[in-house]
Amino acid sequence: MTADTEPCRLTATDAARRLAEGSLTSEALVSSCLERIAEREATVRAFAHLDRELALPEARACDRRGRPGPLHGLPVGIKDIIDTADRPTGYGSPIYDGHRPAHDARCVIRTRARGGVVLGKTATTEFAWSFPGPTRNPHHPAHTPGGSSSGSAAAVADYMVPLAFGTQTGGSVIRPSAYCGIVGFKPTYNRYPMAGIKPLSPGLDTLGLHARTVEDAALFDAALTGAAPLDSAAAAGSLRIGLCETPAWSKAEPAVRNALHRAADVLSRRGMRIELLDLPDAFAGLLEAAPLIMRTDGAVSLATEYRDHRDRMSEFARRSVTAGAATDAAALSAAWALVESCTAAFDVLARDHDAILTPSAPGEAPASLESTGDAAFNRLWTALHAPCLTLPAGTGPAGLPIGIQLVGRRYDDRHLLAVAQRVESVLRDGGV
Amino acid sequence: MTADTEPCRLTATDAARRLAEGSLTSEALVSSCLERIAEREATVRAFAHLDRELALPEARACDRRGRPGPLHGLPVGIKDIIDTADRPTGYGSPIYDGHRPAHDARCVIRTRARGGVVLGKTATTEFAWSFPGPTRNPHHPAHTPGGSSSGSAAAVADYMVPLAFGTQTGGSVIRPSAYCGIVGFKPTYNRYPMAGIKPLSPGLDTLGLHARTVEDAALFDAALTGAAPLDSAAAAGSLRIGLCETPAWSKAEPAVRNALHRAADVLSRRGMRIELLDLPDAFAGLLEAAPLIMRTDGAVSLATEYRDHRDRMSEFARRSVTAGAATDAAALSAAWALVESCTAAFDVLARDHDAILTPSAPGEAPASLESTGDAAFNRLWTALHAPCLTLPAGTGPAGLPIGIQLVGRRYDDRHLLAVAQRVESVLRDGGV
Repeated sequence: MTADTEPCRLTATDAARRLAEGSLTSEALVSSCLERIAEREATVRAFAHLDRELALPEARACDRRGRPGPLHGLPVGIKDIIDTADRPTGYGSPIYDGHRPAHDARCVIRTRARGGVVLGKTATTEFAWSFPGPTRNPHHPAHTPGGSSSGSAAAVADYMVPLAFGTQTGGSVIRPSAYCGIVGFKPTYNRYPMAGIKPLSPGLDTLGLHARTVEDAALFDAALTGAAPLDSAAAAGSLRIGLCETPAWSKAEPAVRNALHRAADVLSRRGMRIELLDLPDAFAGLLEAAPLIMRTDGAVSLATEYRDHRDRMSEFARRSVTAGAATDAAALSAAWALVESCTAAFDVLARDHDAILTPSAPGEAPASLESTGDAAFNRLWTALHAPCLTLPAGTGPAGLPIGIQLVGRRYDDRHLLAVAQRVESVLRDGGV
Repeated sequence: MTADTEPCRLTATDAARRLAEGSLTSEALVSSCLERIAEREATVRAFAHLDRELALPEARACDRRGRPGPLHGLPVGIKDIIDTADRPTGYGSPIYDGHRPAHDARCVIRTRARGGVVLGKTATTEFAWSFPGPTRNPHHPAHTPGGSSSGSAAAVADYMVPLAFGTQTGGSVIRPSAYCGIVGFKPTYNRYPMAGIKPLSPGLDTLGLHARTVEDAALFDAALTGAAPLDSAAAAGSLRIGLCETPAWSKAEPAVRNALHRAADVLSRRGMRIELLDLPDAFAGLLEAAPLIMRTDGAVSLATEYRDHRDRMSEFARRSVTAGAATDAAALSAAWALVESCTAAFDVLARDHDAILTPSAPGEAPASLESTGDAAFNRLWTALHAPCLTLPAGTGPAGLPIGIQLVGRRYDDRHLLAVAQRVESVLRDGGV
């Protein structure tokens, strides 16, 4: 980082340091982000709503207030299924064009209480389900950015904002982060508050984060939870990493297989213990059980929209609500029972590993804007409520980013972040 | 513990050990609990639904299955606002007499997946709000057991079951546990899954535990979360304990003030650092903000019942729904903003303490069955989402139990449990 780096390109950690020193103002940082957006938004389409006349005064107020919380002066992107009282919240659906919630979501209130500045609302797929929004991959506009947190991942990747909220029900934080070449963190289920976020499948929906480095994700996480700074000593010994192909392995493209094994190789050469981890056979059933739960809940969550406005829902959403409403009660019970028995087994397996290393997505971002890609490498961990983080690990045949995923023990989010920070640094040194 | 202790009087930890050794069967343990209930239930009225012909076969199936999870063979009481598909779930309201949910709540599925046996449904106040259920304090039947988790606290205290689920929105786990003389643990908000629990105020409602020792609470917590056994080394040094009178101090009766200061004294003599902790003035506002949020949400959560069946709601619930529905939107926003700014301040304060020591309730259980007591010493911590644990610490003027409360850092539940275990042992040695 040189002194004349554009502020929008700073990591959140570097920007926070400069803001604390007084060598950067929130207004200058937000202005720089807005300039970047002005330059790139026509191509990337990351924002559902952006108003400089809301963001800039908020930044100036931060500069004047000067009682720095851990996010003091940092702009944050808010996925547009998260309620904001001062900005429209459209849930990615024309049904909610111009909708203005009465209250901010709890995570927005919290972000501001810790000093953060709301930059704007980032584009989401329809109701954070699968029908794509307008966003394009900043590395190549003919490719999907992934979804459902499409705008958040693309905006962070494209230096429009250093931090953003995303949500994951299937793979909606990890996959777009991997496709856009950034860090995505889906914490243990319910680590961050869900009030004021449009529900899709409440037993799976998890609020998560997008950032450009693990350190930035850890900064954002600590601000939201009050956690102490990362304990790098905890991740300093000989880490035990479980290499896990998962029951979705047949979907992994060669570039992903290579990235994963190359990463394992580099980590192993740097003294980490890499052990093959086979999941019990029952886990394969989660690839069916998780979507069954999601569409059954989705039919309930979107029942009112379906009843009153189905003409303005995508064909995908209509079909999913219909299929979800037809779920057999016994099948739903069986799906939850499978999730719980796998969670019990996972807790035992996870105890022996500092993290599990596994693909973030089947491949690079597909060359299409019609689909946001496949959540096959995400559904399992989301259903298990386990914390997951994706890190960039090279590129694929089209030159687009490939991610690798680290999965941790439930409720041990800070350990996963500390391990991920070490892995990130080892891979960087190893030229991955 | 002698070899001929009635099984129902064993701690969960001792029972688990015997079950693992094979010197106790789940059937024998559940039978002993059922005998105790048969003897005492007419006085205590802890259960909303109990059927030996459901509990015993479940225990026998556990004995046969013999693939022990961490709760293998242990009976658990389920508060009757938690859904069970094989038993009626009445939510403490005549509106739901005989109601049979289609699915088990997630925590019930999880309990069984870890080997636990559902013993029965424990009585709750109406919708886990304030209108009392039938339960009496097992130490004196003219006194309230506290609420809303009245039946769970009374059943665990009276040796009817070693472990039970409760929920807390104001003070509904900590207060009844204190009144009944047991350990109550309300973890960090959302630590345990809420699916299938009748909501009252979703941003406050927290699933918690009742047990007779801290070790038992830690066992139950670990079973639900996959946490490693308590690290007693983490709580072995010179612990820093913040003694906090809270803005509700004027409500603390002399017996509670004495119990708190006596406990602080004993801990100090045993090498812990006791420091007076003054909360910032703004925290006093939480005593108004938390009930405002609760009744506003309550009006939404009970809107259908109010519309269709208000004649079968208590006068209290009717008045509360009416009041909650009339909340001013700006007042609600201000309440949430206050909660969030206090949470930010709390995170900083909490970092300097291993735990905060504070009253669990204003006094002994009041001599009334018309009210379940006052949550003034609980609302603050519930609103802050902080983990809380109550421990018995002697008796008051009527000879009924007094509790003291330990409050921990958010998301650091296992540390709080380890500290509480050490405090429990020091107090026991100190004759408190």
